[in-house]
Amino acid sequence: MSKPTSKDLTHLLSEEAKSRKNSPLKGAFKYFKQPGMTFLGGGLPLPDYFPFDKVTADIPTPPFTNGLGAQVTEEDKTVLEIHKKAELNKGENEIELSRSLQYGFTEGQPEVVGFLKEHTDMIHKVPYEDWDVMATVGNTQSWDATLRTFVTRGDAILVEEFSFSSALETANAQGVITVPVPMDAEGILPDALDKQLDQWVGPKPKLLYTICTGQNPTGSCIDAERRKKIYDLAVKHDFIIVEDEPYYFLQMETYTTDESARKGKQPHSHEEFINALVPSYLSMDVEGRVIRLDSFSKVLAPGLRFGWIVGQAKLLERFLRIHEVSIQCPSGLTQSLTNGLLQKWGHKGYLDWLIGLRSEYTHKRDVAIDAVIKYFPKEIISFVPPVAGMFFTVTLDASKHPKFKELGEDAQKIEDLVYEQGLKQGCLMIPGSWFKSEGKTNPPQPELPENPDTKNTFFFRGTYAAVPLDQLVIGLEKFGKAVKIEYNL
Amino acid sequence: MSKPTSKDLTHLLSEEAKSRKNSPLKGAFKYFKQPGMTFLGGGLPLPDYFPFDKVTADIPTPPFTNGLGAQVTEEDKTVLEIHKKAELNKGENEIELSRSLQYGFTEGQPEVVGFLKEHTDMIHKVPYEDWDVMATVGNTQSWDATLRTFVTRGDAILVEEFSFSSALETANAQGVITVPVPMDAEGILPDALDKQLDQWVGPKPKLLYTICTGQNPTGSCIDAERRKKIYDLAVKHDFIIVEDEPYYFLQMETYTTDESARKGKQPHSHEEFINALVPSYLSMDVEGRVIRLDSFSKVLAPGLRFGWIVGQAKLLERFLRIHEVSIQCPSGLTQSLTNGLLQKWGHKGYLDWLIGLRSEYTHKRDVAIDAVIKYFPKEIISFVPPVAGMFFTVTLDASKHPKFKELGEDAQKIEDLVYEQGLKQGCLMIPGSWFKSEGKTNPPQPELPENPDTKNTFFFRGTYAAVPLDQLVIGLEKFGKAVKIEYNL
Repeated sequence: MSKPTSKDLTHLLSEEAKSRKNSPLKGAFKYFKQPGMTFLGGGLPLPDYFPFDKVTADIPTPPFTNGLGAQVTEEDKTVLEIHKKAELNKGENEIELSRSLQYGFTEGQPEVVGFLKEHTDMIHKVPYEDWDVMATVGNTQSWDATLRTFVTRGDAILVEEFSFSSALETANAQGVITVPVPMDAEGILPDALDKQLDQWVGPKPKLLYTICTGQNPTGSCIDAERRKKIYDLAVKHDFIIVEDEPYYFLQMETYTTDESARKGKQPHSHEEFINALVPSYLSMDVEGRVIRLDSFSKVLAPGLRFGWIVGQAKLLERFLRIHEVSIQCPSGLTQSLTNGLLQKWGHKGYLDWLIGLRSEYTHKRDVAIDAVIKYFPKEIISFVPPVAGMFFTVTLDASKHPKFKELGEDAQKIEDLVYEQGLKQGCLMIPGSWFKSEGKTNPPQPELPENPDTKNTFFFRGTYAAVPLDQLVIGLEKFGKAVKIEYNL
Repeated sequence: MSKPTSKDLTHLLSEEAKSRKNSPLKGAFKYFKQPGMTFLGGGLPLPDYFPFDKVTADIPTPPFTNGLGAQVTEEDKTVLEIHKKAELNKGENEIELSRSLQYGFTEGQPEVVGFLKEHTDMIHKVPYEDWDVMATVGNTQSWDATLRTFVTRGDAILVEEFSFSSALETANAQGVITVPVPMDAEGILPDALDKQLDQWVGPKPKLLYTICTGQNPTGSCIDAERRKKIYDLAVKHDFIIVEDEPYYFLQMETYTTDESARKGKQPHSHEEFINALVPSYLSMDVEGRVIRLDSFSKVLAPGLRFGWIVGQAKLLERFLRIHEVSIQCPSGLTQSLTNGLLQKWGHKGYLDWLIGLRSEYTHKRDVAIDAVIKYFPKEIISFVPPVAGMFFTVTLDASKHPKFKELGEDAQKIEDLVYEQGLKQGCLMIPGSWFKSEGKTNPPQPELPENPDTKNTFFFRGTYAAVPLDQLVIGLEKFGKAVKIEYNL
């Protein structure tokens, strides 16, 4: 069955993106490899002068049965070798250094982009025809480029009510207004979003920016049903969904306090693993109105500075133009070695790695939530154990704090007190208010009704990703103590 | 003797740069390593899960006596080893993978930035106190970030009359008007620039963008005297000089047709080498109004995607804010391995490498110019043998073309004919008109008097960098033939 092609959405491009031109020099490059042509056009240094003759990397060998954190030993070690000239090497699909360390391939080297396309289709089964993948230097830069491609100073975009503060700052500095969309513990509320857009004053926002899986900061993971409703709203109100998905493969088993039930709960086959993943917006995208920001930062390593954008080819071409005159492409060493790793592992080995991550993060999350239950005072807190990502949040009831009335019934003042007490006791968690998006259009949008569930509450964001598990438990014990001290419990 | 501190130039910042805020999250990071503090603040993956346990690289060993292009042999090979944890290694100043592959150090890892600062001071002897170095992913991105830091849509900047078309497009797409400054075969004409600014209509431009050494496309290298005059104009008219200097270390001996004089002409000591370099604008910058864009692209390899900006610390802090929410920093593999190479070589070894480049490029340039002299018809061409960079240009007299009158005395039409004939004969050189900067302000600036020397001329840009020397000679023979055919010679 043939798939539909994407809808033309070029009317949503920014002034900047519309005005970007191809370089005439790039046009001349069609003669670069023409037989009989001496090409004196480009300022490329000879690869003979690249001072890296060979690079190697020691990587673990699938299926990683001792866990991902295990020390790589001689037995389970694979050695990648990337040569300056590929003919010296036996490896197939190798990105030789004379190519990766040269100019060219702004969209990413074909071997690694090819792997990512196969991987993307395996996971998301993209339902339209003309989608593509473009390499970036990580989601932070992908988001910056996305804003430049679609919005112009003064435009408004939609963001989650609590969102990653750096992502908000990326928009703010570009003069873009980040208007919050109401959410609850499970993510964006579709009905509220629909109402918000029905009564929208002025030009409607072109983008919804969402960290939908393992949301930062709330740790929520919006379910398939809400996603579908939100996708339909994107069609109805003609906006693009930017799904920023660094945590997509940090999905876990559902939390249970029953320790015996935890065992053997992880998916065993690749198929089970893939089917257990929450469907992405991309997987529902029949019109090509999803821009998916993907990255190796949380699944391999952030310092690779290697991400990729999935979207319709016609829109990605505008990203190519911006990358040609800004980042160009990810580092050649990153591309050669990451590609080497992926080709050695193959899709099966990479899925083994991702399954390993799922198991590691499930365990970390369990330890964190166990400690919250053990050390935090039940009577004033609430939380939803996360099923994805690096973060968990603990919500506190400000109205039960002894100074609530005295401090003018201001939840944020109580939040400050608990934060400071946490530092005093020796544990830092990030106050939820630091992530509040508060952009206002001019004229302002009509007020949405206040959510009675979250009135007089505040929350803290913690992570189980970054600290050894013994430290995590000690930290949460200290923060729990801080809460008890503040609340006289 | 103590150096002066820089002048406050924050009035030259763009709207965007002024509005960029520090992330409150970054503020919390001061507690990251505080003893006794459990830090649950940041979403950092554990380095245990980074799948690169060790990386190595084979690099050549100084002093590279067989030339830079020589195959690395077992005898002159140095093997870099970078481990996940530095204590496993003997190397000092190593950037271990658990750090380079993690988040952090937006400004660049301290070891490699430290090396670059020492190198910068050794070469440029920066005459003010509070300068600094910041890592970027190459000069293309540095220039994009520089524009975002200083100019706002609608602003005008100054560029060379012929300039790198991608750099112009970077500005154009941001809605910035690139106003040409008159130049001759030796670069920008200071008196014309002064006059242009004296009679400037509207807000004066904040930036002059210049590729001053091995200019792209003209191949010119502006001398110290003109540089000093232009620096004084920057002070007088309060603009910033952006010196885009990828070719700085591709400086060569003066061209001579006397082959015996070519031998033994290269500088022998590091000191001689440094003293033979043309002084940079940075070396004259007593006020901190130079932003220098430097890069490894032409001296090590473009695919490293590793450049750096030198400028006053207060202005660089604004670049840090933009990098935090866009590129973050160069790839960790690039930083670990490039730093490894630089630390192994040391400053002396790196200077040996640069001296080797000087010698290689001098030879390439000689071969190119010899071939131009041999194969191009003297009577209609002129050229200045370049002393820096990858490019040479050949200027042609349009008025001597048989169809000049017939085609309305339009030099560009003759240029087109020669370009097409070149393709037919099998050699591509880039027409100079492709690099013409033609930005116009509204209202327009007063017309400058036409340069009688360049009226009725056009030029082609060639490179001796990218092709083996035998190919270069064959190509120039073919292009010379094309010129002769077109001119009936």
